[in-house]
Amino acid sequence: MKKDKKNKPSKELPLGFVDRQEKELLVRDFIISNIKKVMIKYGFQYLETPSFEYSDSIGKFLPDKDRPDEGVFSFKDEKKWLSLRYDLTAPLARYVAKNYLEIAKPFKRYQLGTVWRNEKPGPGRFREFLQFDADFVGTKSLQADAELCVLISEILEKCGLNKKEYIIKISSRKITEDLFKKIKTDNNEQRLITLRALDKIDRLGWDEVKKLLGKGRKDKSGDFTKGANLSSKNIDLIEKELKKTTPETEDLKEILKIFKDYNFENFEFDPSVIRGLEYYTGPIFEVNLKFDVKNEKGKAIQFGSIGGGGRYDNLVNNFGNYDAPATGISIGLDRLVYALIQKKEFKIKQSRPIVICVFDKDSMQEYIRLQKILRDSEISAEIYPGESKLKKQMEYANKINAPAVILYGENEIKLGKPTIKNLKSGKEISISIKDIENEIKKII
Amino acid sequence: MKKDKKNKPSKELPLGFVDRQEKELLVRDFIISNIKKVMIKYGFQYLETPSFEYSDSIGKFLPDKDRPDEGVFSFKDEKKWLSLRYDLTAPLARYVAKNYLEIAKPFKRYQLGTVWRNEKPGPGRFREFLQFDADFVGTKSLQADAELCVLISEILEKCGLNKKEYIIKISSRKITEDLFKKIKTDNNEQRLITLRALDKIDRLGWDEVKKLLGKGRKDKSGDFTKGANLSSKNIDLIEKELKKTTPETEDLKEILKIFKDYNFENFEFDPSVIRGLEYYTGPIFEVNLKFDVKNEKGKAIQFGSIGGGGRYDNLVNNFGNYDAPATGISIGLDRLVYALIQKKEFKIKQSRPIVICVFDKDSMQEYIRLQKILRDSEISAEIYPGESKLKKQMEYANKINAPAVILYGENEIKLGKPTIKNLKSGKEISISIKDIENEIKKII
Repeated sequence: MKKDKKNKPSKELPLGFVDRQEKELLVRDFIISNIKKVMIKYGFQYLETPSFEYSDSIGKFLPDKDRPDEGVFSFKDEKKWLSLRYDLTAPLARYVAKNYLEIAKPFKRYQLGTVWRNEKPGPGRFREFLQFDADFVGTKSLQADAELCVLISEILEKCGLNKKEYIIKISSRKITEDLFKKIKTDNNEQRLITLRALDKIDRLGWDEVKKLLGKGRKDKSGDFTKGANLSSKNIDLIEKELKKTTPETEDLKEILKIFKDYNFENFEFDPSVIRGLEYYTGPIFEVNLKFDVKNEKGKAIQFGSIGGGGRYDNLVNNFGNYDAPATGISIGLDRLVYALIQKKEFKIKQSRPIVICVFDKDSMQEYIRLQKILRDSEISAEIYPGESKLKKQMEYANKINAPAVILYGENEIKLGKPTIKNLKSGKEISISIKDIENEIKKII
Repeated sequence: MKKDKKNKPSKELPLGFVDRQEKELLVRDFIISNIKKVMIKYGFQYLETPSFEYSDSIGKFLPDKDRPDEGVFSFKDEKKWLSLRYDLTAPLARYVAKNYLEIAKPFKRYQLGTVWRNEKPGPGRFREFLQFDADFVGTKSLQADAELCVLISEILEKCGLNKKEYIIKISSRKITEDLFKKIKTDNNEQRLITLRALDKIDRLGWDEVKKLLGKGRKDKSGDFTKGANLSSKNIDLIEKELKKTTPETEDLKEILKIFKDYNFENFEFDPSVIRGLEYYTGPIFEVNLKFDVKNEKGKAIQFGSIGGGGRYDNLVNNFGNYDAPATGISIGLDRLVYALIQKKEFKIKQSRPIVICVFDKDSMQEYIRLQKILRDSEISAEIYPGESKLKKQMEYANKINAPAVILYGENEIKLGKPTIKNLKSGKEISISIKDIENEIKKII
């Protein structure tokens, strides 16, 4: 029966992919159920687009120009290429174009879905993650942009965060547009390098970013990154503008007014928020957590944002001449789960079953009877799911963190009195069957 | 601004993939929430494996030998091939092998996940679908097999089906094994052709299947399928055995006894149930709906099973020498959703928002105030999410099936009395703000 070891398939996962355990999944379910409640309350429609799209439907407007085509998982399908979606926005744009005549406009939809990045995986960098997106399509109203911030805030608070634990940063692409006018650059590459440099303020700080705006920067490893080659006068101008604390663009002034009407105060104007996507055309938002998050080694890390979004008035238009100005927000659910699990106060109950031990297969009817009583009361319970001796059964119950085991051997069956052993306290009690539900409820 | 039309990406979806709408997704959520409740009650652990596996981890035991490698979506990743999973069983086997030492055994896990088939798509044949799987790994106990049937039955009944609307068919691979002994064939190809032929009884009937067991069969299109070349004596023997109505194998006799202890009667022994997977080693089950299901043209169709499963004692062993006999069941959720939606009695409420019309952007504060009152009472409500005239706003409200609109113009604001227009009855009433919650609740 022993096969050649070389012929065995790998037990390992490809890099960048992980198995997710119950605790994490329960927290995720909790977040998702809150998201759904809020989305219904806010009148959004629930939509799901498939994992695959024609590559040209998403490839034509890949958000980061510096991401190669290989950033996406693609297949040749008969004659055309298919790709796994890398976000939920491109498929939304395709959906709106496809169904433009039928859908009510403005169109408000939300989606929960996995996205894939065919990137080089690293520690904590996954190639598959779950996103939540909410978008308004077909409206220029800034009420929509403002409401996205309010709804994310409501979701986070429903998930147990208080106002000190998160902040919505807002800015606008109008600010950088105005800046480019002021420094008189219409060289697209220079603008792009500038945007990318500014997107790194958070991580590198102004001193290093200024190098990237100028001649370039050598990082710790000695690698040199070409700069935007702006004059020092222009760099100073940019720094001054992006350190302002009060917005001067019309879009943000109006959003601030709407925030006031909403009594929404948990935001911060931060013109240095740029976000990587090129397609933004107006207000942009970023959702940041403010409590300490640790890495797997227990060291506090700079966690960054859990998501963000902004206005993208020209994206749907890529498919044809559609009048579909839009704004949307996207949250990385796996990152949010990772952070929430670390909050001390955050507890999700994992229901582990009461284990009914098997003494004799011929008494199965009796065990099933007890199991039915418990399950009918919505108590998680199982007959030991194997055929081992009692010692092994107890080891199993301990390993799965069962709150208790029920011992119902020959003598107990004769008396009609099962024994409940509390696995935390070690205490055993003998009770009559009619009391079993109540006794177990005391333990779980 | 007008681009060349040829350069526009496609608005269409690749064949075999679909967008899913709210109604369908809400039914799916309803089923999933019932599944989760039952799985907790039965003591199963919640697990999620990723979409991708190393191709050799799943390819080495693709269930259908006649499915080519191209049946799976695969990518070359640096040096190794990755594939999107085609079911949730192969990844479970990989997971158990990878974590064999840490996990409690027996291991009971459930998973909800998308699977992909890179097959030629056709009407109603999708290349991506959502599955629910529940498995026991590490036990030979037939209590496990029996419980899978009981739990699926509980899930279906929680979803609103009565006992006449579904049936669990049971059989065992031991029956076909015994048959092969009786007809003295150990030619693997002949066995395979025989199994595949028998798997078609449901669809083709005995007369046609007998041709496939003999010389072969020409179908309506004139295509000839090679038969198993069994003698007519052996074919008669098979037919007789597979028409029996009482199981004679030990495994099924024991399962029937356990069913009795469970008071579970909604099953049917049907030895002609074969199921396509080659790796089954013992009891097999199939879940069938018994109410009429129609196709998109309204014609009643032979719907077939919504899932099934069985015992597979050697699957985990493919990864090494692991003692992990197992049994599991798999349900196709999209098919179950499709069928449930067609049941007349089955109603899922889609909450559509109350639309607060916008008369004047400067009154936004007033609209937000009304919206807050409604949302605070968990009523779905939205301020019209655009910037159109009232007529367009009313059209929008009708198109999204809003139950009512709230009209709060200059005069109404002065009086502090918004007008509620019921969009079903067409009735309008003017009420004071403090009554708004109660009035709306009467409408929705």
